[in-house]
Amino acid sequence: MDLFFLGALGWGPAGGLSAGEAFYIASQIEDGNAESWTCAFEHQGEVLSAQANIWLKRGCTLAAGEARLKAFACYRSAWQFVVPGKRFTALFRTSQKHFDQALEELGIPATRFTIPYAGGELPGHFFQASDPTVPTILVIGGADTCHEDRFLSQGRYYLNRGYSVALVDLPGQGLVQEQGLYWEPETELPIAAVIDELITRFRVEPQRLALLGMSLGGYFASRAAAYEPRIAAVIATPVLTNPIELFKGVEKQEAESDKTKASEAGKNNLQVLMWKAGATDFSEMAQRWDGVVVNPLNIHVPFLSVLGNQEGSIWKKQTEEWHTNIASAKKSLVILDAESGADAHCQGNNPLRLVQEVDAWLREVL
Amino acid sequence: MDLFFLGALGWGPAGGLSAGEAFYIASQIEDGNAESWTCAFEHQGEVLSAQANIWLKRGCTLAAGEARLKAFACYRSAWQFVVPGKRFTALFRTSQKHFDQALEELGIPATRFTIPYAGGELPGHFFQASDPTVPTILVIGGADTCHEDRFLSQGRYYLNRGYSVALVDLPGQGLVQEQGLYWEPETELPIAAVIDELITRFRVEPQRLALLGMSLGGYFASRAAAYEPRIAAVIATPVLTNPIELFKGVEKQEAESDKTKASEAGKNNLQVLMWKAGATDFSEMAQRWDGVVVNPLNIHVPFLSVLGNQEGSIWKKQTEEWHTNIASAKKSLVILDAESGADAHCQGNNPLRLVQEVDAWLREVL
Repeated sequence: MDLFFLGALGWGPAGGLSAGEAFYIASQIEDGNAESWTCAFEHQGEVLSAQANIWLKRGCTLAAGEARLKAFACYRSAWQFVVPGKRFTALFRTSQKHFDQALEELGIPATRFTIPYAGGELPGHFFQASDPTVPTILVIGGADTCHEDRFLSQGRYYLNRGYSVALVDLPGQGLVQEQGLYWEPETELPIAAVIDELITRFRVEPQRLALLGMSLGGYFASRAAAYEPRIAAVIATPVLTNPIELFKGVEKQEAESDKTKASEAGKNNLQVLMWKAGATDFSEMAQRWDGVVVNPLNIHVPFLSVLGNQEGSIWKKQTEEWHTNIASAKKSLVILDAESGADAHCQGNNPLRLVQEVDAWLREVL
Repeated sequence: MDLFFLGALGWGPAGGLSAGEAFYIASQIEDGNAESWTCAFEHQGEVLSAQANIWLKRGCTLAAGEARLKAFACYRSAWQFVVPGKRFTALFRTSQKHFDQALEELGIPATRFTIPYAGGELPGHFFQASDPTVPTILVIGGADTCHEDRFLSQGRYYLNRGYSVALVDLPGQGLVQEQGLYWEPETELPIAAVIDELITRFRVEPQRLALLGMSLGGYFASRAAAYEPRIAAVIATPVLTNPIELFKGVEKQEAESDKTKASEAGKNNLQVLMWKAGATDFSEMAQRWDGVVVNPLNIHVPFLSVLGNQEGSIWKKQTEEWHTNIASAKKSLVILDAESGADAHCQGNNPLRLVQEVDAWLREVL
């Protein structure tokens, strides 16, 4: 829970909860108790949504949007430890509704779209910069995200820096698994469908398109870097080239944990992950992912690998080996230590530092 | 220390430290140990300042300004528990230098000014909105602030909302006590000098001028509301009308505390406060402030009283009595509970909520 709470706190500067709101919520959570987590965040979402309506009545549209975006952040955190089912879906849909209303109230122009893929639809948002010739950054989250929360984590910062921003859920992300579309090894296929749409609908030029993958999205991005030629620069935090190693690590941790003490939150989270993976258990997952490895020698696109020092050993090993071995003429590895305050998983404790690194590097390679 | 750490965390959304940086600093602080606090913040200031220089070399001026503003926040927190003397002054001057450089790098137009007063000079910053006809908000801090940190606490939000903003140190604030100018009961005098300057130099119109006083600044603002006619609206969080009650409360707390256990940080802070008050001890302070009370019947200007539920009993009593008794035709009292996340002293745990309340109210009264 600590990681997700830190994440929620890390969204603050981009319009998420204040320290006071986050700690008030935390005071109602019993460690490991998923129900207490969900109720505390859901209730705060209701409080903030009601406050947003009060601001609207007073004619304060900006304040309404600020409160509504915080309400989104609450509902989004609320579903984190809910098992798949009606409640998960209801909280998720409520979070989406608040996100879109907040954007409108904040006056942030955005287009919600869906992309046909494999008989289903991938949802996303496109944020067009005022200058249509600037680069576009496509941000892809990981196992525990939805595309909307990438706005608070990274997207809004790039928009404020003048970039266009695309956020999208790939199979197994957000609610896409409801359509029977689960995480898949060949991520270049849905990403190709996304790029088709970015080019035809939003006139994005591939030579000005950057892809940022976070967490499990570090695999999605590395994979796309190897097989999808229409990307000008790729960033992964951290890199993941061999997902089965990570999944096996989680399985081992699970097997070693004392089942009687295993927290409800952890168990629920695992159930959600299996749902996203489209597997009933680890052995089924292993079957699907066994032998799936991205070859660093296939990588010729400019590539930025980012690694926080708090990342686990599997992430560290794969990121460092990847950086050493990729064939790209332009490659860079940024390792962030405790002093940077950005050493947590995907820089959740200091999102701005990741933004600064990505922005600085893109200026040099694009 | 907790209050000041929460304050430092609360500055995050306006450009202060990220959660990761703040908690990294906290990990180096031993509770009550002033030296560990100072060293941890000072070192992080050096780290961020060096990082800002790295961004500059890479041509990333915005990232440089962001890191520099965080460096300012570090040096400003560093002096919080340092006794008066060379080290205090050096840290203070370093924080100021970083503040001005950060504004330049961030492209935030600001004018640093000094106002002649009682043989000395009061320093401040004026931030001119792009539309010169908009209202100006003059933000005044309290016992533990300098005018620059009010930028992170409140000023930047108003600037982003289109207001012009003035920040200034009154006698006994920032470093002004170095000039022998200490907190004084007749705050309407230095505030009059400030308003003279705002009118003549920055063409501020009194009927578009709001005054926001925070903490001990809640007294300064209430006092000015009674005696200075050139202000269109006054906000205090919380209100303080009878400062001696507060000072006696601090004295009582001090007398009751176990001296052998009294933290170095607390003792140092008290020494700084006495320096700002221009007193050697509480009895000298009491002599100067005995009988100093602002009469609520003298208040005819629109007045917004703000009170967080975590405020101490003296603040609560004085704020509520004030609101009930002032003669203003337009008056409002906002009480912020735990759920708002803004219940701490001066809304340090959720500064945006204070901004929203002030902005909404000003739109109604100005």
